[in-house]
Amino acid sequence: MAGTKAADGKDQAGGSRGRRADAQRNVNAILEATQELLSTDPTASMQEVARAAGVGRVTLYSHFGSRTELLDAVFTRVMAEADRALADVDLSGDERQALARLVRSSWRLVQQSRLLLFAAQLELPQGQIREHHDGALERVESLIRRGRRNRTFRTDLPASWMVTVFYSVIHGAADEINAGRLTAERAPNMITATLLSAFAPTVPAT
Amino acid sequence: MAGTKAADGKDQAGGSRGRRADAQRNVNAILEATQELLSTDPTASMQEVARAAGVGRVTLYSHFGSRTELLDAVFTRVMAEADRALADVDLSGDERQALARLVRSSWRLVQQSRLLLFAAQLELPQGQIREHHDGALERVESLIRRGRRNRTFRTDLPASWMVTVFYSVIHGAADEINAGRLTAERAPNMITATLLSAFAPTVPAT
Repeated sequence: MAGTKAADGKDQAGGSRGRRADAQRNVNAILEATQELLSTDPTASMQEVARAAGVGRVTLYSHFGSRTELLDAVFTRVMAEADRALADVDLSGDERQALARLVRSSWRLVQQSRLLLFAAQLELPQGQIREHHDGALERVESLIRRGRRNRTFRTDLPASWMVTVFYSVIHGAADEINAGRLTAERAPNMITATLLSAFAPTVPAT
Repeated sequence: MAGTKAADGKDQAGGSRGRRADAQRNVNAILEATQELLSTDPTASMQEVARAAGVGRVTLYSHFGSRTELLDAVFTRVMAEADRALADVDLSGDERQALARLVRSSWRLVQQSRLLLFAAQLELPQGQIREHHDGALERVESLIRRGRRNRTFRTDLPASWMVTVFYSVIHGAADEINAGRLTAERAPNMITATLLSAFAPTVPAT
């Protein structure tokens, strides 16, 4: 009896671990399916997400109480991945060359998550989206501020505006590629050439 | 009898004219309500549009068979308005000053229609959105091409990419203003300063 009880105990523990593992697998499947689905259709419904993830609606809602909650989780995950990728970029040395390296490493991430951002903008408050970008934005902003201190970049425009220009030009390129009007090969050099000119110190009028 | 007939005929013609006038009033009310509604909520439904326009669902659908059709009509109307406003901008003379005048006249229009564009992007094919922009895009593109011919603007990047940069920077500013991080007073000068640097001829390396 004691042995059976112990075995039961083990089974229960194993079952609980199994359920936790199942739950984690479900969450992963849901997040991956949502990310993929929203990348092609930013208006995909909870029902379509459940179908794509191979889980029931009850399971989906047990993990994510609403579409907003799910979108927030997907966005957090994507930005964490982007953050890890960008953390590897060497931003030391000349700020112009560092900017070129940052563009080369980040523009693809932006392009891939463009429609996802679109879905997020429809559902999440603007402030929340900005928060998710904080890691990446800080990296860009600190590079821009260093370039301003070293007079590699212009100082007559606010640093925050230069961060906006950085993202706007990359987003514009992503839209052009997604629309088939720009090739992925040409994009990074065009983005970099544009930003370096836009950020260059202005020559004082003589 | 003949008199009565004639009177009937007149009544019928008057009634028909009246119905046409009613229909035109309905269409205008629907387009205006949709434009206003989508500017705050890009996901507004046909039912919400009907309510805001003060017409029944049947009337709404008698004029616009689907949400896509309605969006297309609203977008056409907004872009035609923008086109009329931009046609008044003097683009002659020095291309840098002409660009500054174009920015001053167009960035407000972009900001006002930003959420509408958002609604359109969710519903209309990308190509159709581009078509609606054709008038405005041509104006920008022809100015850029003239600046390239006169060597006022750089020629090492494609003209089409420079058009993209023009719109991306204005769109970025619009998003910043809508998010409350940039004031409408500072925007036009910052946009212009950024674009003029981005478009300036590159100094050949010596």
